[in-house]
Amino acid sequence: MDKKTQAAFEAGIKLGALYHQWVGTPISPETASSVEKAIENAVGLQPFVEEIKVSINTELMTLNSFGYSELAGKMFDVKITTKVGNATCIAQLQLENEYPMMKILEIR
Amino acid sequence: MDKKTQAAFEAGIKLGALYHQWVGTPISPETASSVEKAIENAVGLQPFVEEIKVSINTELMTLNSFGYSELAGKMFDVKITTKVGNATCIAQLQLENEYPMMKILEIR
Amino acid sequence: MDKKTQAAFEAGIKLGALYHQWVGTPISPETASSVEKAIENAVGLQPFVEEIKVSINTELMTLNSFGYSELAGKMFDVKITTKVGNATCIAQLQLENEYPMMKILEIR
Amino acid sequence: MDKKTQAAFEAGIKLGALYHQWVGTPISPETASSVEKAIENAVGLQPFVEEIKVSINTELMTLNSFGYSELAGKMFDVKITTKVGNATCIAQLQLENEYPMMKILEIR
Repeated sequence: MDKKTQAAFEAGIKLGALYHQWVGTPISPETASSVEKAIENAVGLQPFVEEIKVSINTELMTLNSFGYSELAGKMFDVKITTKVGNATCIAQLQLENEYPMMKILEIR
Repeated sequence: MDKKTQAAFEAGIKLGALYHQWVGTPISPETASSVEKAIENAVGLQPFVEEIKVSINTELMTLNSFGYSELAGKMFDVKITTKVGNATCIAQLQLENEYPMMKILEIR
Repeated sequence: MDKKTQAAFEAGIKLGALYHQWVGTPISPETASSVEKAIENAVGLQPFVEEIKVSINTELMTLNSFGYSELAGKMFDVKITTKVGNATCIAQLQLENEYPMMKILEIR
Repeated sequence: MDKKTQAAFEAGIKLGALYHQWVGTPISPETASSVEKAIENAVGLQPFVEEIKVSINTELMTLNSFGYSELAGKMFDVKITTKVGNATCIAQLQLENEYPMMKILEIR
């Protein structure tokens, strides 16, 4: 199996996983950074992850009547680098035309 | 509606919610504290929560072949205090006979 | 401990749990009934649950550019009955002023 | 971008997503098929999915003192086919040496 293909597969796994693990978490602009950190730490444990950077867009948070929001897919801005053998894949999760799009940015 | 009953209902909501939001998270003894913090912050945003303390039992983590574990219900040790009007409910989630038991400790 | 209080606590647990377990699931009007059924089956397994009815409001689904939606808290219409000893609690999860509100309807 | 690489990326996304969306669900041998169906329906909605087959290994369920179990990663046996342009990726999630392994079976 081609290592580049595997690196892309691994990047996909991590993005799909983090999205569905954390969507729905109660969140606010004040607590966003602790959630970003927890996600980065969790994903960083998984195999083949070289680098992971998670930013949650607090401007997209609409506070409910109790003063907090809920982590939604559209708030994610994630960049991940996976490495399998000599192959490297850089992929992202980012809002694109109202859809939280996951895509490969670079593969080498 | 009796305020004590409501405080118990609110405590139940938070314990059920946190369990099912975070179970499955990749975790290790090194990252446990960042997950504890993120959970405390998230639950602390929800209505009627006075206090929340989350401890994850790292001794119950069995590391897989890639060197990490996954947050499981049995690892939780959570104590929460909810308040509705003058009524206060203190409840916990803790391993009891191999079952992650949620129960009310005190209501007043 | 008062049985009514416990029945309320148990109802809260189940509503909090189901919300955070399933929010984020890819869904469409065509698949909603299979998700409703799976949720009812899952919650029905938990202790003290007498009855559970889940309806997902398909009219609140906004289809993304790929033609599907994502289960959101506001789509839930859930009614649950818990029983502890002779005490019964009927509670619901339903959209109320744009907030997916959980509340006790009756306790006896 | 190579279409095979993209098909692999998409397969990874879906496997990572379904794992972290459903792990933790209360389940029993009797309700397993409704959960399998709900997962297949949900994943089938996502872009680039050609086929998805989910089997949950009921023999790995250890019933707790209340008579039910919880969906764990090791119970999954999933096969997915994604297609991007003319490229097809077949991947699986299956227990391998006690680890719920995701891997590519075929790419063409």
